[in-house]
Amino acid sequence: MAKPSIPQGTRDFCAEIVRKRNYIFNVIKNVFEIYGFEPLETPALENLETLMGKYGEEGDKLMYKILNNGISNPKNIEKSKAGFEKVLEGKSSKDLTERALKYDLTIPFARYVAMNYGKLTFPFRRYQIQQVWRGDNPQKGRYREFTQCDADVVGSNSLLNEVELAAIYHEVFNQLNITDYELKINSRKILTALAEVCAEEEKVVAITTAIDKLDKIGIERVKEELIEKGLNDDQVEIIETYLTMDGIDTNTATNIEKLTFLKDFFADSEIGIEGIKELEYLITHLPENTNISIDSTLARGLNYYTGVIFEAKAPNTVKIGSIGGGGRYDDLTGLFDVPGIPGVGISFGVDRIYDVMTELNLFPIAVDAGPTAIFFNMGEVESLFAFGIMQQLRKQGVSCELYHEFVKINKQFTYAERKNFSYAIIIGSKEIEQKYCLVKNLKTGIQEVVVFEKLYNYF
Amino acid sequence: MAKPSIPQGTRDFCAEIVRKRNYIFNVIKNVFEIYGFEPLETPALENLETLMGKYGEEGDKLMYKILNNGISNPKNIEKSKAGFEKVLEGKSSKDLTERALKYDLTIPFARYVAMNYGKLTFPFRRYQIQQVWRGDNPQKGRYREFTQCDADVVGSNSLLNEVELAAIYHEVFNQLNITDYELKINSRKILTALAEVCAEEEKVVAITTAIDKLDKIGIERVKEELIEKGLNDDQVEIIETYLTMDGIDTNTATNIEKLTFLKDFFADSEIGIEGIKELEYLITHLPENTNISIDSTLARGLNYYTGVIFEAKAPNTVKIGSIGGGGRYDDLTGLFDVPGIPGVGISFGVDRIYDVMTELNLFPIAVDAGPTAIFFNMGEVESLFAFGIMQQLRKQGVSCELYHEFVKINKQFTYAERKNFSYAIIIGSKEIEQKYCLVKNLKTGIQEVVVFEKLYNYF
Repeated sequence: MAKPSIPQGTRDFCAEIVRKRNYIFNVIKNVFEIYGFEPLETPALENLETLMGKYGEEGDKLMYKILNNGISNPKNIEKSKAGFEKVLEGKSSKDLTERALKYDLTIPFARYVAMNYGKLTFPFRRYQIQQVWRGDNPQKGRYREFTQCDADVVGSNSLLNEVELAAIYHEVFNQLNITDYELKINSRKILTALAEVCAEEEKVVAITTAIDKLDKIGIERVKEELIEKGLNDDQVEIIETYLTMDGIDTNTATNIEKLTFLKDFFADSEIGIEGIKELEYLITHLPENTNISIDSTLARGLNYYTGVIFEAKAPNTVKIGSIGGGGRYDDLTGLFDVPGIPGVGISFGVDRIYDVMTELNLFPIAVDAGPTAIFFNMGEVESLFAFGIMQQLRKQGVSCELYHEFVKINKQFTYAERKNFSYAIIIGSKEIEQKYCLVKNLKTGIQEVVVFEKLYNYF
Repeated sequence: MAKPSIPQGTRDFCAEIVRKRNYIFNVIKNVFEIYGFEPLETPALENLETLMGKYGEEGDKLMYKILNNGISNPKNIEKSKAGFEKVLEGKSSKDLTERALKYDLTIPFARYVAMNYGKLTFPFRRYQIQQVWRGDNPQKGRYREFTQCDADVVGSNSLLNEVELAAIYHEVFNQLNITDYELKINSRKILTALAEVCAEEEKVVAITTAIDKLDKIGIERVKEELIEKGLNDDQVEIIETYLTMDGIDTNTATNIEKLTFLKDFFADSEIGIEGIKELEYLITHLPENTNISIDSTLARGLNYYTGVIFEAKAPNTVKIGSIGGGGRYDDLTGLFDVPGIPGVGISFGVDRIYDVMTELNLFPIAVDAGPTAIFFNMGEVESLFAFGIMQQLRKQGVSCELYHEFVKINKQFTYAERKNFSYAIIIGSKEIEQKYCLVKNLKTGIQEVVVFEKLYNYF
């Protein structure tokens, strides 16, 4: 057969990458737990009907659907054919596929909350770090199989949650040494107010969607899109004034100055004032150094947000953009007939965080350490003796290995270097007799004589 | 819509279960690392051609295949139809499905080794803890989505590897407090010798397969199956003598006594003697207390084993059977055109280990601890003050939470109990003024007055 390969957009992770990814996951997980979030895991497979229609037309198309097993079974064949016809028409059919791979962590979480509503204690603070799948076109930083890290609080309207989630971003990025990140905030209430000020309340989604593209397409094309959506020149001018915060330099202005602009701009809008107050609360209750900045151009594409929205940006020196995002929503589980559960959540883009840390060389060297010590194999009797010593060391929690066969010492050295061991331990017949061993530090090259009893506390 | 559900054979894991499962995973992972194994992760999705035909007809049927996206796209529709016809005929077609979910960890590992052959350092010791999927009928202890934990050494013929893998079983089960497990060993070489002694060398697979069913169907039906497969009464008697180790009580006999029986039984078989020597090596080089026992009836269904085979059995008090297994194979990557890589590996059945530990009540209580402390919400000013104190505690690594709103204290207590907090901290206006707080141990009910400075070292 041809040289084997893996599907486009998927990846094998070797030891070095697993260790570095786990380093990131562990920091995030640990901060989530310190903040009182508890773990949840949902299956990779969900019923197709749980997912279909929840991510728009695009999502329905990009979702990976599982072919039912047994479709060629004679007793199923007529149903299979009918199901296939429906699928060719662009519909979905349980007779062909009943299950799909999860597409994000939010809908399965909503499904879980709806299914277990009576048993859960609210507010329910859960975090979830799991893989999701999307049949998107792969490109730099975009994969078909990737990991999401989400934390949500549901069943609470308190703004303290927003404060805590912003503090989590700060804590995680600081622990990862990504100190130059920026946490942009805005509020969907302010965007609603903007539509109100334009007297185009029903066009709030169109306006939000256009603004969301600002980073990618620039202000001129956003304005064109707004005109196409039916707004007039005056309205577009109002939106531009809002986006550029006309009169202040958004790159240097403080949050207080931006709030003053917004208060003035939305002085007559009740919902605008509410949104501004929420941003003010957030800024007031966070420590000064949290890298938080109000950004009137932040919109967040997804439709379900209703209050404060977040977006974490990678340091400007790295051209990667968003490394996290989230916001408040009013009704998580309404889709599953359990209405009235508000919540707020954030997400970390681990694959991009990994890229940022690689580019800025932020992984601590210790993260990629191999096992601690290798015992060289100096012959049959010697190696069995070394095996006994090694088992004692392992009991002390020292990771080690005995080279598997008696070959030239050079070959064993090469193996030790390639696998990134820190120490090599040599026990030959003379050493057995005199009850010591040679310990060579493979990083410094320094070699020491260590008596056996002292070896157990050496590392 | 109807109350949502999850696919049959899949599971949601709430916080308690995630914590308990992670406890098991961490013990296994830690022991693997102490033994010099390094992590590997492969994608959930593999190319269908990588997996098809590797698990027999049954495997091809139970594998979850992903429907290609875009099959209803006009430019693909003719190909899709042709592909569907092929699938209905029981064949596979890239025009309908190109990808499948991984079915075990061994074939993806082989695929990885074949793909990266030139870059890897041998012997290559890897462990892998990941989900796999099988469309099997769900039943107690059998799921459609479950986690496998494998460790393999490839590129080494040394029996030291078998010794280490047996030691890993011992270490893991001891750390998990499953001290009454039993590690059964046998050798495929001995089963080959058995076919030789019967003068039916070409029937070794049939004999092995029949023996493998002994536990399930009993000796009489195994004998019937052997007759059906074309063996005569004399041959079946030889096999029965071997299986029952005629003349010794296999329940009480020592490994040395069993070895003596086997040496005698296979005195004229070269391959038999080789297999016996390997078992002897294994037993000699392991500490006395490793719960290892030679079991002539152990066969392990899978075909690729060629040397020592392992099976770990749950304590007899729990009717669960196998909680792990493995063995030596000659040629891991031959399927992918990279021949000549021998190896040996073991696997832990985590779902069953979880059930054993639950039944025997072996999880340490601390595993399921909730967050450490909850700050009760005593009003707007008080809660903001408490928030500041809480952020300091979090910086010390104490997991804590501030109740999200100012409600009756009883409601806050109920929340604290349900979420299994260890302590409740109360800071009212009087406490703020006098710079102390009340700390209530929720397990003992004891309440203490603690001044703020001391709180940071209290937990």
